[in-house]
Amino acid sequence: MAKTSARQGTAPRNYPKGERRRAQIIEAAFTAFGQVGYRNASMVQLAAACDVSRAGLLHHFPTKESLLEAVLEERERQDDAHFFGSGAVNRDGLEYFASMIRLVAHNQANPLIVSLFAVLSGEATAADHPARPYFVARYERTRRQMQLAVDDLVRRDLLRPHVDASGLAADLIAFIDGLQIQWLLSPDAIDMPDHLRKLLRGLISVELP
Amino acid sequence: MAKTSARQGTAPRNYPKGERRRAQIIEAAFTAFGQVGYRNASMVQLAAACDVSRAGLLHHFPTKESLLEAVLEERERQDDAHFFGSGAVNRDGLEYFASMIRLVAHNQANPLIVSLFAVLSGEATAADHPARPYFVARYERTRRQMQLAVDDLVRRDLLRPHVDASGLAADLIAFIDGLQIQWLLSPDAIDMPDHLRKLLRGLISVELP
Repeated sequence: MAKTSARQGTAPRNYPKGERRRAQIIEAAFTAFGQVGYRNASMVQLAAACDVSRAGLLHHFPTKESLLEAVLEERERQDDAHFFGSGAVNRDGLEYFASMIRLVAHNQANPLIVSLFAVLSGEATAADHPARPYFVARYERTRRQMQLAVDDLVRRDLLRPHVDASGLAADLIAFIDGLQIQWLLSPDAIDMPDHLRKLLRGLISVELP
Repeated sequence: MAKTSARQGTAPRNYPKGERRRAQIIEAAFTAFGQVGYRNASMVQLAAACDVSRAGLLHHFPTKESLLEAVLEERERQDDAHFFGSGAVNRDGLEYFASMIRLVAHNQANPLIVSLFAVLSGEATAADHPARPYFVARYERTRRQMQLAVDDLVRRDLLRPHVDASGLAADLIAFIDGLQIQWLLSPDAIDMPDHLRKLLRGLISVELP
């Protein structure tokens, strides 16, 4: 948000066209990174796909890293739009996991979102990958947020007996990530929201809203 | 096994040196594919890393795809050696999951094995990736094998109430795969065999052997 305002402030007149072009480049990179990975995507091919010159591309994104950052921000923005629509989500464990099922269903209808995450998160485990710090921080944050939802369920005594709540956030995130790979490889064999719903029924003692 | 015998039969005299060189190339490719991915790994750099000429590399692996196949076979061989040591593993659900914890502990002590899998399985979700058919078949087989172990637990009434056994194999494989990503990014925050052990305690009503 702050970044957009700053750009609007400095060049108000060419904002609409420039923004459209910028969004178009991010969209093309979103697809390319999700298909061939970040390392293997070519700035030349991206420029061609957007029908923009190499100089035009570099005007918006001076480095491939800055484009990667914009793509990850865009993915985050899409997640937030679908996931944190309700402000109550984080405080209520049942609402949180009901939203999580909706997010997974939304992602299943948008394979590009799933591909981008599956390909980049694997690639970014390498020590020298520019997206590694982003993914380290993102997982830490997601584990912390989800653990708050789990803690709420513990407080309300809504977890089934024998469920170990201590590492449950990491476990559920792992489950969702891993399921994306199986779904991308065999979309007819795996229904992601259905698997998540069934798994949560084995953990939570009441029906989700 | 069959392949090695065939090679020995046609060129018995240079078997030991040729085999050593071949193994060395596979090892270097194993590392490179796990670090930068298959698409981004360079045959020229691989040849240099093994101190072999490009022609020497192509003698053993005429295409990059044939090297990928050899690396995936080698990983499979290592898995089998640690996992299917006991012939009884598949028939006994408790033995199967006890072996699974041991395999995950072994992998955690060998980050290259984990990286290779995490990077390649993500990359291979792309429609045109040469390892896609391998991963599709591998997941189908692993789901089938693990489901036999789950079915054994169902028959012996060893699953806790409310656990849905129908998609449990896919769920557990997803969990293990996803945990690898979090562990590769934050090795100090995640202990993979510990997470698996705790998760299985929430699913299985007796202690594993």
